[in-house]
Amino acid sequence: MNTSIIRRVLGWLLALEGAFMLLPFVVGLLYREDTAWYFLGVGAFSIVLGLALAYKKAASSVFYMREGCIATALGWIELSFFGCLPFYLSGEIPRFTDAMFETVSGFTTTGASILSDVESLSRCMLFWRSFTHWLGGMGVLVFLLAVIQLPGGSHMNLMKAESPGPSVGKLRPKVRQTARILYIIYFVMTVIEVVLLLGGGMELFDALTTSFGTAGTGGFGIKNDSMAGYSPYLQWVVTIFMALFGVNFSFYYLLLLRRVRDAFSMEEVLTYFIIILAAIGILMWDLRGDGLALADTLRNAAFQVSSIITTTGFATTDFNSWPQTSRTVLVILMFIGACAGSTGGGIKVSRIIVMFRTMIKELGSYIHPKSIRKIEMDGKVIEHEVLRGINVFFVTYMLIFSLSVLAVSIDGLDMVTNFTAVAATFNNIGPGLELVGPSGNFSVFSPVSKWVLMFDMLAGRLEVFPMLLLFYPPCWKNLLRHRAAVARGVH
Amino acid sequence: MNTSIIRRVLGWLLALEGAFMLLPFVVGLLYREDTAWYFLGVGAFSIVLGLALAYKKAASSVFYMREGCIATALGWIELSFFGCLPFYLSGEIPRFTDAMFETVSGFTTTGASILSDVESLSRCMLFWRSFTHWLGGMGVLVFLLAVIQLPGGSHMNLMKAESPGPSVGKLRPKVRQTARILYIIYFVMTVIEVVLLLGGGMELFDALTTSFGTAGTGGFGIKNDSMAGYSPYLQWVVTIFMALFGVNFSFYYLLLLRRVRDAFSMEEVLTYFIIILAAIGILMWDLRGDGLALADTLRNAAFQVSSIITTTGFATTDFNSWPQTSRTVLVILMFIGACAGSTGGGIKVSRIIVMFRTMIKELGSYIHPKSIRKIEMDGKVIEHEVLRGINVFFVTYMLIFSLSVLAVSIDGLDMVTNFTAVAATFNNIGPGLELVGPSGNFSVFSPVSKWVLMFDMLAGRLEVFPMLLLFYPPCWKNLLRHRAAVARGVH
Repeated sequence: MNTSIIRRVLGWLLALEGAFMLLPFVVGLLYREDTAWYFLGVGAFSIVLGLALAYKKAASSVFYMREGCIATALGWIELSFFGCLPFYLSGEIPRFTDAMFETVSGFTTTGASILSDVESLSRCMLFWRSFTHWLGGMGVLVFLLAVIQLPGGSHMNLMKAESPGPSVGKLRPKVRQTARILYIIYFVMTVIEVVLLLGGGMELFDALTTSFGTAGTGGFGIKNDSMAGYSPYLQWVVTIFMALFGVNFSFYYLLLLRRVRDAFSMEEVLTYFIIILAAIGILMWDLRGDGLALADTLRNAAFQVSSIITTTGFATTDFNSWPQTSRTVLVILMFIGACAGSTGGGIKVSRIIVMFRTMIKELGSYIHPKSIRKIEMDGKVIEHEVLRGINVFFVTYMLIFSLSVLAVSIDGLDMVTNFTAVAATFNNIGPGLELVGPSGNFSVFSPVSKWVLMFDMLAGRLEVFPMLLLFYPPCWKNLLRHRAAVARGVH
Repeated sequence: MNTSIIRRVLGWLLALEGAFMLLPFVVGLLYREDTAWYFLGVGAFSIVLGLALAYKKAASSVFYMREGCIATALGWIELSFFGCLPFYLSGEIPRFTDAMFETVSGFTTTGASILSDVESLSRCMLFWRSFTHWLGGMGVLVFLLAVIQLPGGSHMNLMKAESPGPSVGKLRPKVRQTARILYIIYFVMTVIEVVLLLGGGMELFDALTTSFGTAGTGGFGIKNDSMAGYSPYLQWVVTIFMALFGVNFSFYYLLLLRRVRDAFSMEEVLTYFIIILAAIGILMWDLRGDGLALADTLRNAAFQVSSIITTTGFATTDFNSWPQTSRTVLVILMFIGACAGSTGGGIKVSRIIVMFRTMIKELGSYIHPKSIRKIEMDGKVIEHEVLRGINVFFVTYMLIFSLSVLAVSIDGLDMVTNFTAVAATFNNIGPGLELVGPSGNFSVFSPVSKWVLMFDMLAGRLEVFPMLLLFYPPCWKNLLRHRAAVARGVH
């Protein structure tokens, strides 16, 4: 393994995070908060340490999938560790595990919180908390690729490791161009949401943090009641933007290229919207006796569906108290997740489509055993390797899911809490049901369970394998052997 | 589709079932129960109707996978329909849906019951109810293959459609021989259990019905408290025999051939026992504060683990009231299930092993992207087609599972009840948790949900695809076209 290039990537990442900490520092200064200085301190330290790590050139420019995965996994842990320091050092989140949980939840765009009183945090902390969503949504490494020219190697491997979905849509042949286009679309859409929220009378601070949470499909709110206190107009704006950020960004790129027809014939995007409409329909039917006006029921149903399928996790109502069918629909949406190539989590709509087609194809093979059928998407045959990858992902996903529920069950909480807590963290949603429902929070878990859930959040965000590699002994055995070889002068 | 051969198979099956109904008839006569005559009536009618259906020779001996699956799916529905008539006509289970549910549950070796007072049933009904487990466990079509020489075609397709597991272990080159060997092992093991239970002081009637339930990994009890009232010795006998009937029958065949070493190196069997021991270990630790003597805790833990992993479903204690870790372990065992080639249900240990190896292989491919690794089992490379089959099975399994939970949720019961009710029926276990726990029953569900769960039981027992084919339009379109062609004289 080429450790020197991993060191460099980690260095650049850290410096970048340090630089971003100047934003909450400025926010804190504006609101005259003493805690702002923690951001300057940690930020400056991160920049210095990061640049020091990145300074020495890499011994080799070899950069394979392994290096990409390890750099990504370690990078995200590094970001979370340094990112949590302001919360912890300032004492606003007094326990380290909790501060780390909150930051992992932020960067992974989960939005699961251990805080019971969000409103007691200072403004700069709230800003940073929401800003981690925005950074984590499109990917910090993708940002790095957009601004820095890393030496040699295939940076596609970094992008692959960080991007959600079964395959990376290379919008342009060069990784750097793709990364830039993605961030430009992301930035512009965020700005439009901010403007629309301001137009509805929302304060600038609220508009910014809400937009960060929406864009990254994160879900950290700055109010104890999440979004319930905002006007219907503001709730609708957020509903629509959550749904839009759950769309495969290739869709927007095609629109930019004026290939409108290609964009609207993307099967994943169509299916995604069909699922959203179907879910809203079921919820409207199930909630028919809730005593609210039809418009309010529709707003609540649409908001929660959009929030859950995109794995954002904002809430306008306590859906934990909804009837069982609605709760079950929401749990199923948790697993489906958003489109690949969006900022959302979950299994992803494209994988679900492929799974359905695999099933149909299998049924067909019983009737015509000798005919060879291919599974297609958007008119193209899906390569065998991609199909295999989807199956392996699903199997691994389910194994980790089961083991996590088992690990968390040791705390002795009820089964729905455990099941949905893992579902909500692994799929990067935020709230689950029962004790971790919209009106509860994750402080009910023991520290051990919190670390399990942190692993799930990171594994979910990075699509399982990069995080698993860290726990795969041959990965390190190899490294030690390499070290030994270097020491003997043979490499 | 060759409908005439399907008609013949269905005919033979029905006649066979009619013949087996003479057993409960005799039992009823011995106990001087009036309801016994329903078995004679329905049995005689089934024999006549069955022979009439089977009488006319098939137009063609073509017998492909499709014919095998459709014959199996329809055959199991036919068996359940005629098998439920004595319950329904005698009025001992007054509603048709309930009688059908109970019979489907019996044949599929699920053991889920809608009865709150089992002990009120007459003896002949109880006998038939448990006997359906014994028939369903090894497979009714397998029995048919063992006794009747069907004309032409590959009967392997019938056996494949009915046998649990990713691939059928052909013990002998001829299907008929394999079927006979399986039934001989099955019969002898059942007799041994009966003898051991009699030796422990159990009544003959109890010993027979308990052994039927154990052998088929079914789980219908004849007491309201399932097995709790029996002595520790009897409970241990049942514990051990449940575990033994969950073993791949190839293991016993190898033992018969004195290939002891081959038998004990079967990875699936080893893993199966390791999982059982590990689960008992976790339960012992989790139940340490239950106030019972260590021997009693061990007996309870071992009994429940053996009962759930083999998908039998007997209970000696209300495990619904156990702590969360134990409950979660049991739910995970529900999904793992027994060995392939046994009478048990669930995903099957061999599939779980392959899934784990797929995951490890994937991790390895990140480190050595170019090396080609094969997944092995028992020292043999698993063919690509089998791997693909396992993946497709798992994906389909999960899709049906999710849709079933959604459908059942409309009744408005709590989520753990819904989730475990589907888990317990789809994996052919019997009891779940909460309302469908050992002290509850499935009468809490609406008729619609009961039909959904019946579909799940059949789909689970027949490994999903044969049942799904019935709902796959091209399967019937083809049939209609064939009919039209026959009418025009071209076939």
